[in-house]
Amino acid sequence: MTDRPDSSRAPIDPTGIHAVTWRDGRLDLLDQRRLPADLRRVVCEDVDAVIHCIRDMVVRGAPAIGVAAAYGAVLAARVRVASQGPNWQAGFGSDLARLKEARPTAVNLAWAVERMLAAAAAAGDDPVAVLLDAARRIHAEDIAMNLEMAKRGAALIETPGSVITHCNAGALATGGVGTALGVIRAAWKRGLVTRVWVDETRPWLQGARLTAWELGRDGIPTTVITDSAAAQLMRREPPAWAIVGADRVVANGDVVNKIGTYSLAVLARHHGVRFMVVAPSSSLDIATSSGDEVPIEQRDPQEIWAAAGGVPPGAEALNPAFDVTPAELVDALVTERGVATPPSTASIAALLKG
Amino acid sequence: MTDRPDSSRAPIDPTGIHAVTWRDGRLDLLDQRRLPADLRRVVCEDVDAVIHCIRDMVVRGAPAIGVAAAYGAVLAARVRVASQGPNWQAGFGSDLARLKEARPTAVNLAWAVERMLAAAAAAGDDPVAVLLDAARRIHAEDIAMNLEMAKRGAALIETPGSVITHCNAGALATGGVGTALGVIRAAWKRGLVTRVWVDETRPWLQGARLTAWELGRDGIPTTVITDSAAAQLMRREPPAWAIVGADRVVANGDVVNKIGTYSLAVLARHHGVRFMVVAPSSSLDIATSSGDEVPIEQRDPQEIWAAAGGVPPGAEALNPAFDVTPAELVDALVTERGVATPPSTASIAALLKG
Repeated sequence: MTDRPDSSRAPIDPTGIHAVTWRDGRLDLLDQRRLPADLRRVVCEDVDAVIHCIRDMVVRGAPAIGVAAAYGAVLAARVRVASQGPNWQAGFGSDLARLKEARPTAVNLAWAVERMLAAAAAAGDDPVAVLLDAARRIHAEDIAMNLEMAKRGAALIETPGSVITHCNAGALATGGVGTALGVIRAAWKRGLVTRVWVDETRPWLQGARLTAWELGRDGIPTTVITDSAAAQLMRREPPAWAIVGADRVVANGDVVNKIGTYSLAVLARHHGVRFMVVAPSSSLDIATSSGDEVPIEQRDPQEIWAAAGGVPPGAEALNPAFDVTPAELVDALVTERGVATPPSTASIAALLKG
Repeated sequence: MTDRPDSSRAPIDPTGIHAVTWRDGRLDLLDQRRLPADLRRVVCEDVDAVIHCIRDMVVRGAPAIGVAAAYGAVLAARVRVASQGPNWQAGFGSDLARLKEARPTAVNLAWAVERMLAAAAAAGDDPVAVLLDAARRIHAEDIAMNLEMAKRGAALIETPGSVITHCNAGALATGGVGTALGVIRAAWKRGLVTRVWVDETRPWLQGARLTAWELGRDGIPTTVITDSAAAQLMRREPPAWAIVGADRVVANGDVVNKIGTYSLAVLARHHGVRFMVVAPSSSLDIATSSGDEVPIEQRDPQEIWAAAGGVPPGAEALNPAFDVTPAELVDALVTERGVATPPSTASIAALLKG
């Protein structure tokens, strides 16, 4: 019927976790605020629900946010068609503009919205099927990119040893096996990973809650530590690699990722631990020349105070969500298009041409 | 009446916080597990209560543990005298042996117990007054050492700027103004500290709960960050100094302190931030030649998992309470007897002789 064989069915997440799924005409998200205690799902029927879920971190992780936003555009179009018929495009652009602003750092969000806008521009009067097809393509591509990165990243690990990761760059952060965790899964299957050390990743505890849950589920030996314990670990029993994802990689190879990534990179360099960043080309932002130009999202200090059980009178808290790791601290940038060792303006440009 | 003017009254904590107080013949401790939400006190009437309070961190911080243990020895003697009369020494030695083992890392605990044993050996049949006098001396000396260190440490800060600290090395960790926070208090009074950045200090959150409470109470500008945010802070708006306490400083100048201290020291060196350790001579352990010989206390992983709301099946956690900062990462070791810049076997030996 069509020359696009993947578009008629939902793409298959090989981990079975399905952080982001299109089901019965709705966007179905695994609620990441509640893991590991609860396995609840949130169902979105319109774009505002999707925006809320991105902002409130029901769904998080740059690639997963991109996939969710793509399906969010389908919902936006469907609502506009139902209420406005052939004039559906009138409010659709502003819907997607709001969607694009839901969180500032993950460049995949803007990338997915731009792709959906391009698909919509050519869609005519019945855009829902066309946009659903485009969203499923984005989702299927993400799964395929994950597998390709997993293969390329695992090939960099030469001998069996432990690795350390930060935050969650797994199935919960993508449509598939994950970026950093995709590499770790592939390397573990080949006997190259003996243990995964997981930074708990304050304040949101993506490591302790999400990565530990994912890896424990796969039977991969997993030990959570506090973020500040990574230094002593590296000194006493150094992992072979630190492997992380990225919310954005800019033209010179600087990496914007969860707060604490830069800290881990400094510690890794000090201890001779190699540092691998795994991110699909949809996370590349070559319009930005250096990481210093990226504004850092500040989140509610309450994310910090909640654990302390109260705010001491007179004290403040600052809660930057991301930090910037300079390219010179990264040994390898793994994308589905190739590996930059190390990343630089030249190596990244070459990789995108190749 | 006596040539020991301080022994008839309780020593005065100049901050008014009174983490450790002798009151009405009992040891009265501010419960540090409940701050900042609750200001509750725990009263100990026997040595087992003191051991429990040290083990369960009702009282923590190496100097405060030492002072609490000294008063604990008074309670032990009183109970033994009441039940055994002139044979009070019979069980007293084993009481103090158990007290000494309550926590493994703070060398002040062993130091205080040894001093109390020496006082007891010369005490005769009515040891309580003699031991209370010895405990009050330890307490008063701690207060005096704090003030001396505060003066010496503040003198190292040349120009006004921000500082960063880890854990709590303040009035809550000592009998007086604190070690690191004593220096910060003194420097702030002289206009040399514009802001204090406080690592929240996972997993027990001594920074967010205790240090922020202490500094906020004093009106000192205080901003709490997650431990892993210190790296980006140092890159973007570097503090002039990182200032921390110590649970133990060994002969070569290696520093055993709260987990994350070593991480902060590596980050400080990478960013050109100077690193100051403030500890009284009672925290020096010159019988141990290097930090690598100090066993690291492992605490219950539940301290980590509690924040995550559950343990993901198949995952483990490791919760080392301390780490070792090699002397070469320390720019200045401040004691009440002098300053070692930098600390080394030679500079520490000279300081103890001088």
